[in-house]
Amino acid sequence: MIIVMKPGATEENLSRVKEKIERAGLSYHLSVGENRTIVGVIGDKKIIGSIEENMSVLDGVEKAVRITEKYKLVSREFHPEPTVIDVRGFKIGGEELAIMAGPCAVESMEQLREAAAEVKKGGAQFLRGGAFKPRTSPYDFQGLAEDGLKMLRSVGDEFDLRVVTEIVDLNDVELVSKYADVLQIGARNMQNFRLLQAVGHGTKPVLLKRGLSATISEWLNAAEYVMSAGNENVMLCERGIRTYETFTRNTLDLSAVAAVKELSHLPIIVDPSHGTGRWQMVQPMARAAVAAGADGLIIEVHPHPEVALSDGDQSLTPKNFRATMDEVRKIAAIMGRK
Amino acid sequence: MIIVMKPGATEENLSRVKEKIERAGLSYHLSVGENRTIVGVIGDKKIIGSIEENMSVLDGVEKAVRITEKYKLVSREFHPEPTVIDVRGFKIGGEELAIMAGPCAVESMEQLREAAAEVKKGGAQFLRGGAFKPRTSPYDFQGLAEDGLKMLRSVGDEFDLRVVTEIVDLNDVELVSKYADVLQIGARNMQNFRLLQAVGHGTKPVLLKRGLSATISEWLNAAEYVMSAGNENVMLCERGIRTYETFTRNTLDLSAVAAVKELSHLPIIVDPSHGTGRWQMVQPMARAAVAAGADGLIIEVHPHPEVALSDGDQSLTPKNFRATMDEVRKIAAIMGRK
Amino acid sequence: MIIVMKPGATEENLSRVKEKIERAGLSYHLSVGENRTIVGVIGDKKIIGSIEENMSVLDGVEKAVRITEKYKLVSREFHPEPTVIDVRGFKIGGEELAIMAGPCAVESMEQLREAAAEVKKGGAQFLRGGAFKPRTSPYDFQGLAEDGLKMLRSVGDEFDLRVVTEIVDLNDVELVSKYADVLQIGARNMQNFRLLQAVGHGTKPVLLKRGLSATISEWLNAAEYVMSAGNENVMLCERGIRTYETFTRNTLDLSAVAAVKELSHLPIIVDPSHGTGRWQMVQPMARAAVAAGADGLIIEVHPHPEVALSDGDQSLTPKNFRATMDEVRKIAAIMGRK
Amino acid sequence: MIIVMKPGATEENLSRVKEKIERAGLSYHLSVGENRTIVGVIGDKKIIGSIEENMSVLDGVEKAVRITEKYKLVSREFHPEPTVIDVRGFKIGGEELAIMAGPCAVESMEQLREAAAEVKKGGAQFLRGGAFKPRTSPYDFQGLAEDGLKMLRSVGDEFDLRVVTEIVDLNDVELVSKYADVLQIGARNMQNFRLLQAVGHGTKPVLLKRGLSATISEWLNAAEYVMSAGNENVMLCERGIRTYETFTRNTLDLSAVAAVKELSHLPIIVDPSHGTGRWQMVQPMARAAVAAGADGLIIEVHPHPEVALSDGDQSLTPKNFRATMDEVRKIAAIMGRK
Repeated sequence: MIIVMKPGATEENLSRVKEKIERAGLSYHLSVGENRTIVGVIGDKKIIGSIEENMSVLDGVEKAVRITEKYKLVSREFHPEPTVIDVRGFKIGGEELAIMAGPCAVESMEQLREAAAEVKKGGAQFLRGGAFKPRTSPYDFQGLAEDGLKMLRSVGDEFDLRVVTEIVDLNDVELVSKYADVLQIGARNMQNFRLLQAVGHGTKPVLLKRGLSATISEWLNAAEYVMSAGNENVMLCERGIRTYETFTRNTLDLSAVAAVKELSHLPIIVDPSHGTGRWQMVQPMARAAVAAGADGLIIEVHPHPEVALSDGDQSLTPKNFRATMDEVRKIAAIMGRK
Repeated sequence: MIIVMKPGATEENLSRVKEKIERAGLSYHLSVGENRTIVGVIGDKKIIGSIEENMSVLDGVEKAVRITEKYKLVSREFHPEPTVIDVRGFKIGGEELAIMAGPCAVESMEQLREAAAEVKKGGAQFLRGGAFKPRTSPYDFQGLAEDGLKMLRSVGDEFDLRVVTEIVDLNDVELVSKYADVLQIGARNMQNFRLLQAVGHGTKPVLLKRGLSATISEWLNAAEYVMSAGNENVMLCERGIRTYETFTRNTLDLSAVAAVKELSHLPIIVDPSHGTGRWQMVQPMARAAVAAGADGLIIEVHPHPEVALSDGDQSLTPKNFRATMDEVRKIAAIMGRK
Repeated sequence: MIIVMKPGATEENLSRVKEKIERAGLSYHLSVGENRTIVGVIGDKKIIGSIEENMSVLDGVEKAVRITEKYKLVSREFHPEPTVIDVRGFKIGGEELAIMAGPCAVESMEQLREAAAEVKKGGAQFLRGGAFKPRTSPYDFQGLAEDGLKMLRSVGDEFDLRVVTEIVDLNDVELVSKYADVLQIGARNMQNFRLLQAVGHGTKPVLLKRGLSATISEWLNAAEYVMSAGNENVMLCERGIRTYETFTRNTLDLSAVAAVKELSHLPIIVDPSHGTGRWQMVQPMARAAVAAGADGLIIEVHPHPEVALSDGDQSLTPKNFRATMDEVRKIAAIMGRK
Repeated sequence: MIIVMKPGATEENLSRVKEKIERAGLSYHLSVGENRTIVGVIGDKKIIGSIEENMSVLDGVEKAVRITEKYKLVSREFHPEPTVIDVRGFKIGGEELAIMAGPCAVESMEQLREAAAEVKKGGAQFLRGGAFKPRTSPYDFQGLAEDGLKMLRSVGDEFDLRVVTEIVDLNDVELVSKYADVLQIGARNMQNFRLLQAVGHGTKPVLLKRGLSATISEWLNAAEYVMSAGNENVMLCERGIRTYETFTRNTLDLSAVAAVKELSHLPIIVDPSHGTGRWQMVQPMARAAVAAGADGLIIEVHPHPEVALSDGDQSLTPKNFRATMDEVRKIAAIMGRK
């Protein structure tokens, strides 16, 4: 932490600052400039973090600037090798691009089987589908709950696809883990810290979506919640952030892929369906995501988007999905991936 | 819903749209312009909402525009009178301005008693304080849990202050309700729909903070979750939204006060502490909030902000709190409030 | 500037950094922590600013953090007294609240005279109106140009109102100055640096609107362009910033009023018309702006908003304007203003 | 335009709306629902645009919703074929990817020649460099003006590179056109409508950067300003938008590439240097941009970024530029480009 003193700060003001640093068991260096003095605080970053918010209240202090991030387990600094997560034999973050595809919501066995057959044909290794749907309005379709989970497992097994599905209730870890191979934390729950801790106490791999307006730092801190609770199998998912632009549903932030690769060792998946909200944009953004260095894609595919119970406007038809996969594979090859 | 057809849409495209509307049990009117046809869909708004996302997938459709909001119970349209919520004799949304004040986090009996004595003196009717603290980093102070709740109740009773505190775990409704008079849902949990439903099944008044990047529409839909589960005692809390500006921690959106008064009958409280993140700004923003029409304020007050375990930089000292209240009361008088 | 070295930075990396600082004629202090070294750079802030962007390119450097702002003339640090600007006898930033009101665009003598009569009656000291209108589309009404300026002057004189109008072309400084008492720089031109310099070379007071997504720092730097060119009569105008919220046209950032008062000595005016884009919100936001500490208001008033050539949806009728002024005056009195 | 009446709107309210539409020479269709009536307005879109803002002021009107965009010349609707712009023999929007590279600012002949030699070697067909630099602070380096232009022309000719440079003053069209092959309009001037018209009256191709917080619609309307003034040689440039994220300088919005391809026939170039503000991210984002379908890239390359007078932190070294080009070419090949 750097503490910037005001130009007119007195010796007494400075003494008070030093005293506070020392009482916390930390040390400091002073940079005395012509107009102002700057105090560099040195020591354990958790302790530094704990006093940071109180420094700017002291008389004579202009501001306190954070220098280091609080997360540790997710940081590449202490774990330079990229993490590879094994999900029933498939290695996420490994040589092969992970493809997770399927309908937004599980609606029926028929719909799910049709979707699964198609995404398998297109080359997906994972079947995605929601059994619990967090919806903006309480009057929208909320998912089939355990019935949906059962369908996912049964259809996943039939087509040899791993199952990715969202968990929304911290009491459901055991239930969802019984059926799913990967537990998804949705964007709206990215800072539902109790839920993060609950999946962190489990062992199932976690797909942590970025919050609607989460900074990269907050997102990595959310991953730290899961990892610090014991579960190291965390993959991140960029799914678009909220901006002022209204043509797209969200603004897909592909620079987050590069940022995550720089700051962390965790694998990163991109969701061009939610990221844009428009099926017409899924194909170009899927290509771009892989070119940016993503470890995988999660894409909404619905056999009949025009009757989907949710997110029809961003779901690909099976035909468009196959066309997208054909192009994505070519980009993946350039990137040294299968 | 309005469906805008593309300029080159064929008769067949249009038939497909009409068919889909009729099969959902809805009706429509056509506006045939020179370049494009527009379809106005008429009928139950829940059904309209359910097919909206699928219309833009149909060939020949340019876009589908939502016309009406999905929320109903929170809407002023069907409930023109403002709601007044009685919390142990104090009427929120009534003639008197509600003042909720206290430390960000409960730290000890001593700190809480000192804070309570001061906020009581300043004119607060409610004591606020967190026993469960949702923090960006897992390594930051997370609150005293049930011990904190007990202190809140005991100190609240001692100083005759109603207790407002945050609930973060859907399993804690009974526990927190035992000690608190108002259950606060924090910004990060505004779309934690399970938690909303859990407090909706209870009877304790709920203070629903606006999400960090929630639209007013999403916020009102979140309130609809609570109300549609049975609990009608909901008050909203504007606490700043996330923008590109970095001088303030958040951008306090006071136009949301006017918007809520126009769209809903629920009371609205403003939090200038989180809304700005800088104690220097709490006083002017508290005045402005009341002038904008807020029904109350929630303000962080700490006897010694420089040693607070969280949010020290946005907490008022008791002295500043009293000065703020003196000014606020004058504005409140102008607004016809006590 | 603070330079944060990477944990693994070598002695050679550090030497390179020191060398670069010294060659620029600056000096430094080192804070050597367990994990990383931090370099505090000391010296002239203009020189520091000039090398800042190059430091993070050096090997071993993690980031360079700016500590001080670049603006100087607008800063309260070196000019603690608030600036009062005299516009033909009216003192902006003085005891009396400045009220600037009138139609968005000058449309005709008849419209302007009617508007002027009404705003005068409501208590305005300034008549606002656009003769040059910057519009998103080239097909929208662009203003009456010099004819509009003449009408403004003539009507202003008739009703004894000072004239505020926008300038959009750097070649028009002389022309607009001939007719207007205050030159307005619109939000879209806040970083049109040539225009800023052009009005900076003149002597007419300047009303500098905040850009649609300008930070407070960028806005004050824009004011520095005007002042450093020689014109010290600058007042700032908060008119709403761009956020993700769509219910309002912009998000009026009233905390900017408090921020400007803290950082600068320049007067600040608030525009609740553009700031919200909805006439229903102008009254509550006008009250709130004054309560936040604004030195004045600029409000769109049109005798017949339903036929206005621009911004009808955010213009007050004369009747609503008078009602707004009645309330605003009560708040102003509390704030110690006339 | 769609006009949504309030649930309680009277017959008289509706008559007033109809009257206003008819008086403007437009016609309408009514959709009478159970709760509300919706009015679809039909006719010339410029006229519709001109009354839009006034409708929501009428009693009984809830809101007016725009259906069609105002731009016409830039729209793909009326010009389905992609535009190809010939710049001295190179076809932008054609088969070959356009590469524009060079330093942020022209600093000296030596620096520029060194940079030009390197970008030529890397495969660029265009030399970029600023002679007029719009800077946030008046105290930052503002460019070499005409001397810089002369250097650009001379070095461009020496290395057979076309010259792209920014114009900031509407009086400079002739001057800059004398030296440059493409006139760049910077992000801060995207809605400097006078400047747009000035370059629109010329014939030199224009590179129009997206404003810092411009919607895609506003950007296309800005291009309409240039085209409607007579200059059809417009190319768009995505350079990152302003969001709440602070790790990157801007958020590069690659979905804008797909959006522009859908809405317009104009070519689009991507600027990953300003788009991210970090040289480490230029390479992955350059790949992603081409995979998304961009017609070209504009990249900052400086022979010695650590001594650059501006934007050193986002400039590539010649070596990194060549490595980037090697990867970009592979992606371009996949996309069917040279």
